[in-house]
Amino acid sequence: MPVRPTRNPGSQSALRLSNQQRILSNLVSSGPTTQADIARNTGLSNATVSNIVKVLVERGLVSTSPTTSSGRRAQLVSLKSTDGAVSVGIDFGRRHVRIIVATVDYRVIGEKDVEIPLGYTAAEALDIAANLLTSTLLQAGVQRSAVLGVGVGVPGPIDSRTGTVVKGAILPEWVGVTVRMVEESFELPVYLENDANLGALAESTWGPHAGTPTVVFIKVGTGIGAGLIFNGRPFLGHIGLTGEIGHTPIHEHGLLCRCGNRGCLETVASTAIMIDMLSRALDRPVRTRDIVRLVLAGDERAIRVVDDAGFAVGRSIAAIANLVNPHTIIVGGPLADLGEMLLSPIRRGLQRYAVPMIVETTELVMSSLGERAEALGGAALVLQHSGIHPTLS
Amino acid sequence: MPVRPTRNPGSQSALRLSNQQRILSNLVSSGPTTQADIARNTGLSNATVSNIVKVLVERGLVSTSPTTSSGRRAQLVSLKSTDGAVSVGIDFGRRHVRIIVATVDYRVIGEKDVEIPLGYTAAEALDIAANLLTSTLLQAGVQRSAVLGVGVGVPGPIDSRTGTVVKGAILPEWVGVTVRMVEESFELPVYLENDANLGALAESTWGPHAGTPTVVFIKVGTGIGAGLIFNGRPFLGHIGLTGEIGHTPIHEHGLLCRCGNRGCLETVASTAIMIDMLSRALDRPVRTRDIVRLVLAGDERAIRVVDDAGFAVGRSIAAIANLVNPHTIIVGGPLADLGEMLLSPIRRGLQRYAVPMIVETTELVMSSLGERAEALGGAALVLQHSGIHPTLS
Repeated sequence: MPVRPTRNPGSQSALRLSNQQRILSNLVSSGPTTQADIARNTGLSNATVSNIVKVLVERGLVSTSPTTSSGRRAQLVSLKSTDGAVSVGIDFGRRHVRIIVATVDYRVIGEKDVEIPLGYTAAEALDIAANLLTSTLLQAGVQRSAVLGVGVGVPGPIDSRTGTVVKGAILPEWVGVTVRMVEESFELPVYLENDANLGALAESTWGPHAGTPTVVFIKVGTGIGAGLIFNGRPFLGHIGLTGEIGHTPIHEHGLLCRCGNRGCLETVASTAIMIDMLSRALDRPVRTRDIVRLVLAGDERAIRVVDDAGFAVGRSIAAIANLVNPHTIIVGGPLADLGEMLLSPIRRGLQRYAVPMIVETTELVMSSLGERAEALGGAALVLQHSGIHPTLS
Repeated sequence: MPVRPTRNPGSQSALRLSNQQRILSNLVSSGPTTQADIARNTGLSNATVSNIVKVLVERGLVSTSPTTSSGRRAQLVSLKSTDGAVSVGIDFGRRHVRIIVATVDYRVIGEKDVEIPLGYTAAEALDIAANLLTSTLLQAGVQRSAVLGVGVGVPGPIDSRTGTVVKGAILPEWVGVTVRMVEESFELPVYLENDANLGALAESTWGPHAGTPTVVFIKVGTGIGAGLIFNGRPFLGHIGLTGEIGHTPIHEHGLLCRCGNRGCLETVASTAIMIDMLSRALDRPVRTRDIVRLVLAGDERAIRVVDDAGFAVGRSIAAIANLVNPHTIIVGGPLADLGEMLLSPIRRGLQRYAVPMIVETTELVMSSLGERAEALGGAALVLQHSGIHPTLS
């Protein structure tokens, strides 16, 4: 029987990348280190360390300086962090742009957000973001040349083969936007990613769930999507279209969905449908923040809408938990301030439809990062692509 | 903001394991190699290679012999494969035990299966398997000491924290069985795993889908479960309970399920429910193999039962594809011989409920490994736990 290769752990480029990440991780955890000590700490040969350090110097990630060690001349390797290298995260929503600037040791040193009008084009939004980027770097006292890259979140699926926003995005204006277009706008290296994926990465990097290896982040907003962290890293599947849970069928003969099907989760539990129902019931325009306000004020109609939505989300979460058995499920998005008012019906749905042993061993919580999650995730994405992982505080 | 560790890629034990796997992979692909050449091929230092080779010699995985290289004395390291090391896979079903013996270069050199009566205890089944193991090794001319380990598949969830079969198993007699009990029965190292997980591993190791990094294997049998291969490796989630898709709700007010819920996928699409419906309709006892025979003979009742079941499976597969965006979905289990008769309604369900771009880019196929998949997966599991991955043929 013929045997074909699995992803060969010994392939040369995978090996190089893995060796590079080892060296960077070692520098993050140990601080400036001689080449000989890096070799000792990682098990790599001196020649391998020396070659990779050369590449990292060229990429501007580390610098070297002469020193002495046990009386002999040696090369001291330092992360450029000490020179102020930073990572930027930018999150685009339907009505906002948020930016976060973080150092290579995962400290946030700059943060801003602006509201933008509904229905702006992608080009207009990118202009606003480019200005926000310039002013935030200026305020934080950071040179543009110190930016390792920009992690950009958009509320839509990204085809990882081409780096393009594809059909299904909450902002139709963004369909067709490529990573190259965003790079031209920012004049910096860009990583383009779905917003729920960035939320998941942020939750597994910052806050109380940092370090949890298996996390599902559910963003309940105008659309509903999931971000997956498996074995400590973002999971993107075959072509980057993971977490498309908004179109799970809930009611066979329910409302028509923007995807062409009917009765999808989004027709029952998105903030868009909640706004639609409450605007009719109250006979005046309602916005997302009003949903939170009405529920917290005890409005029975708003409570019912959120309760039904939460139960449907919980039913979908049950199917997810049965399939991938996560350690922690985190609910985020603009309704996160509702806390138990939203989490309680979600928990009922999970308990009703998941396998009992999975219910017992899965942690279900509300996001503590709130609306900052996606931009934080963007900043983390850049750092992790540079092989810089968070270390013990 | 405090930063806590993600799974630190630089942690010492993870590094050691990763270095060990590099060295074993190198030996599998290059054959016997000197320690100096292993260091060159892997980028590891001579000291690291020497230490790891010592450990591998102690574990009986490799042997060393003196040689010369460029006129200098050197240590030649060889995989014990040349001495006939093997891996064993054993699959327990409701009515069968199957065994497969494979070499470290993934060649099958022994295979047997026996039918066993319904309702046997786990202890009885283990006795039968232990005898089968002894006779199969004898026929293949393999010493017991050459067996690296036994990968054992059972149709039930395994708690990976304790290595115990837990509630929800198709064979209730197996609940509470531990990896330790199986090891005592076989007197060999044992890896205990859910059968669908082993099917997934087999499909990504042997046959036309070998090397596919993201695979979902769906086993449709007395129960319905999924096995997941993510990034080329089995994905086990938080405590090993992945792929529990048999209890996805399909009909809100459907039949009561063995899990305590009602209307689950298994109440609509398992072979158990097909057998139940066809036995009533035909007024005589029907077995799994009869379902295949009746459908292929054109019996309209059997065709209808399989078609409805397939569509429900397809709907569940759509939710899976929307969530984890696999490259390939493979349908296995005892109905695999039905081919298009089962695959066609599954495809209709997938197309009806999955996001269009995911439908377009996901491959949906029938297993070509058939009833051998789980035992093949068991053998592959042992080899991969020893760091031995398949290479180019």
